[in-house]
Amino acid sequence: MVLEMSQFVKSYECTLCHKTYHPSQNIMTCSNCGEQGILMIEYDYEKMKKVVNQAYFENNKDQSMWRYLPLMSIEGKFHERLLKIGFTPLYQANRFHQRIGLNKLFIKDESTNPSQSLKDRASAVAVLKALEMNQDTIACSSTGNAASSLACHAARMGLKTYIFVPKRAPLGKLTQLLIYGANVIQVDGDYRSAFKLSKDAINHYGWYNRNAAINPHLVEGKKTVALEIAEQLNFKPTDWVVVSVGDGCTIAGVYQGFYDLKMLGLIEKIPKLLGVQSEGCAPFVIAHQTKKPLIETNELTIADSIAVGIPRNPVKALRAVIESKGNWISVSDQDIIYTMAKLGKDEGIFAEPAASASFAGLEKAIRLNIIDKNESVTVIHTGNGLKDLDNAQKAIKQPIVMKADLALFNEYYQTKGE
Amino acid sequence: MVLEMSQFVKSYECTLCHKTYHPSQNIMTCSNCGEQGILMIEYDYEKMKKVVNQAYFENNKDQSMWRYLPLMSIEGKFHERLLKIGFTPLYQANRFHQRIGLNKLFIKDESTNPSQSLKDRASAVAVLKALEMNQDTIACSSTGNAASSLACHAARMGLKTYIFVPKRAPLGKLTQLLIYGANVIQVDGDYRSAFKLSKDAINHYGWYNRNAAINPHLVEGKKTVALEIAEQLNFKPTDWVVVSVGDGCTIAGVYQGFYDLKMLGLIEKIPKLLGVQSEGCAPFVIAHQTKKPLIETNELTIADSIAVGIPRNPVKALRAVIESKGNWISVSDQDIIYTMAKLGKDEGIFAEPAASASFAGLEKAIRLNIIDKNESVTVIHTGNGLKDLDNAQKAIKQPIVMKADLALFNEYYQTKGE
Repeated sequence: MVLEMSQFVKSYECTLCHKTYHPSQNIMTCSNCGEQGILMIEYDYEKMKKVVNQAYFENNKDQSMWRYLPLMSIEGKFHERLLKIGFTPLYQANRFHQRIGLNKLFIKDESTNPSQSLKDRASAVAVLKALEMNQDTIACSSTGNAASSLACHAARMGLKTYIFVPKRAPLGKLTQLLIYGANVIQVDGDYRSAFKLSKDAINHYGWYNRNAAINPHLVEGKKTVALEIAEQLNFKPTDWVVVSVGDGCTIAGVYQGFYDLKMLGLIEKIPKLLGVQSEGCAPFVIAHQTKKPLIETNELTIADSIAVGIPRNPVKALRAVIESKGNWISVSDQDIIYTMAKLGKDEGIFAEPAASASFAGLEKAIRLNIIDKNESVTVIHTGNGLKDLDNAQKAIKQPIVMKADLALFNEYYQTKGE
Repeated sequence: MVLEMSQFVKSYECTLCHKTYHPSQNIMTCSNCGEQGILMIEYDYEKMKKVVNQAYFENNKDQSMWRYLPLMSIEGKFHERLLKIGFTPLYQANRFHQRIGLNKLFIKDESTNPSQSLKDRASAVAVLKALEMNQDTIACSSTGNAASSLACHAARMGLKTYIFVPKRAPLGKLTQLLIYGANVIQVDGDYRSAFKLSKDAINHYGWYNRNAAINPHLVEGKKTVALEIAEQLNFKPTDWVVVSVGDGCTIAGVYQGFYDLKMLGLIEKIPKLLGVQSEGCAPFVIAHQTKKPLIETNELTIADSIAVGIPRNPVKALRAVIESKGNWISVSDQDIIYTMAKLGKDEGIFAEPAASASFAGLEKAIRLNIIDKNESVTVIHTGNGLKDLDNAQKAIKQPIVMKADLALFNEYYQTKGE
């Protein structure tokens, strides 16, 4: 089996030892460095420029992530049979920015993707790659969203899935998996245990691997969110882009997208990236603060999507923040819950904990003068709150229950109505 | 307060006594017939034709329901500040059609709207109308989706909401309401009780009324789903369109959309409409079978969104099916659950019970030769399964739980893997 070359892929390069590989080589990670040696995909931007320019975007009628196909490491065969992913709305905030003292805030709403998270972008790439390679089974470990998105798109395309989730996966995500007909293995342990068993099983059975920190093509799916943000802002992206971070693959993808556009001369500068973690699981923030290599942490947070004690993509994620001149910040579970309610009330947006974390991180960054109120900001709303109702309960008051009697209602209205 | 005239509205006409009203009159229902006298909005199609034609659609870059603004009874001021509603994907089925023995099936996916249901279309119209009329509070009763969509869009636009739900509303929908900051009154009783208290309170406080069976503009929001289906199929809609029915407002809206396009000469014929109800609450199906007026039924079904014992919009809904030469059908809760799992597995689509009902209804209609396998069909997927996880549990098997040990996994794989 040979990986097909996409039009503009020049080589694969190891993020650790910088060894390069010809794109026709059938590899996932560096043969020198083993599974730590995650590959970067290198493009021939001079060649790409001739196709991908302002005119390309103006004339492109595809309203999905596949409008960016020439910027990706995938042929994209069969993509028209997928559910519609990407080209999600970019909203200007109506009120939340005022609450946190910011002049200009945009919200990239990934919660309207088919399985209601940003992860659909990466899973779709994995599913198409598996099909291109004639594989009939695809597997991954995930804290939840990568899993449910993979199960969703694999079902649509008729692939079998084996999905390894940690025991804490929220009911919403677990239910999605099972409805989509995945073979679900709930690993008695945390994400680390799920990752280990998935790796062993994938090696044993030779399934296609959707683990984002192994498979170099998945970042290429995730980067389309940055391409869209830039295009939706007429190639003048905001000063900052805020995203919550678990494994590190999403922030790496966001950086890669802006990097591509910079190399193509389509944007002038790459936005500063603010990586947000949860205080109970903040290995990147600790590494940044202590200026030491990443060390393993516990996974003690309600934000399951970013509860990753050993991030699998440290090099790319750390580099994304450094090279963009960005920053790292952590927020408490209490901040996450508080922000979830405020976001619902101000904008009609229902964010799952990990998504709410990025908004909470923005608020804290403004308070700490990391972000100035006159700088423009885009926050990526990564996943829908319906996926985790248990934690949402912590953000809301209970409804009033009464008989159908106007006198009773009047009494409530006079004392409690808002 | 005077209702603003939209460009092409000719008059309002009572569905019962046919009395007409000038659109500048500030009314919701017919002054002769009371609240039973729901109004229809009559358009000047000859005048509309000059603006709304093939060229209008070809040149329209708006990728939301507001591309149809000239066909609606609303000015649409402020619509750019709303979350993005409509222009949802229309998918051709990859596999489900084969399972049920049909040649050509399209799925209109309304579950990717901002609050994950079709009801966003009507709620957005209500919110804009309230703003146009300078009202600061809006209220409704709802089995769930109308409520959560109203709360969502009202929050985004800074309006207060009072929402009356029956006690059975599923946790997902209830949580959405509370996250969006609505004042939620859970009425100790069924939908009928919730409807009654909302009516009394709205009359008492003079709030803007979003009850779809009272407010004539809401059907105009719902009809945009039919406009989209037609446009997405190049104005050659399928032979049938299938939709589940509760109050009757959605099927009335679907009919109205196709009717408009017929009157404008943009489509040749109106698709036959198949109205699907749940066996435990099927007043329309019973009225159709017995050829007698609609009588009140119980509300004994898991499909909460269509569990409406006294439909509030019987005239428009019955007429929609008769005039389209369509039909009515009912399905069991067991059919709904079974279909939910099959749809997830075949298409990667997770439908709430009321949405699954429409697919189950299609299957039954084919079995009963109401729909021929060579006829083309569009099913409207009205709401996301994440809204009702309790009922989804009935459709799935439990995941396997194991330690992170490949030997244990191998054992599972050999006996249970699929």
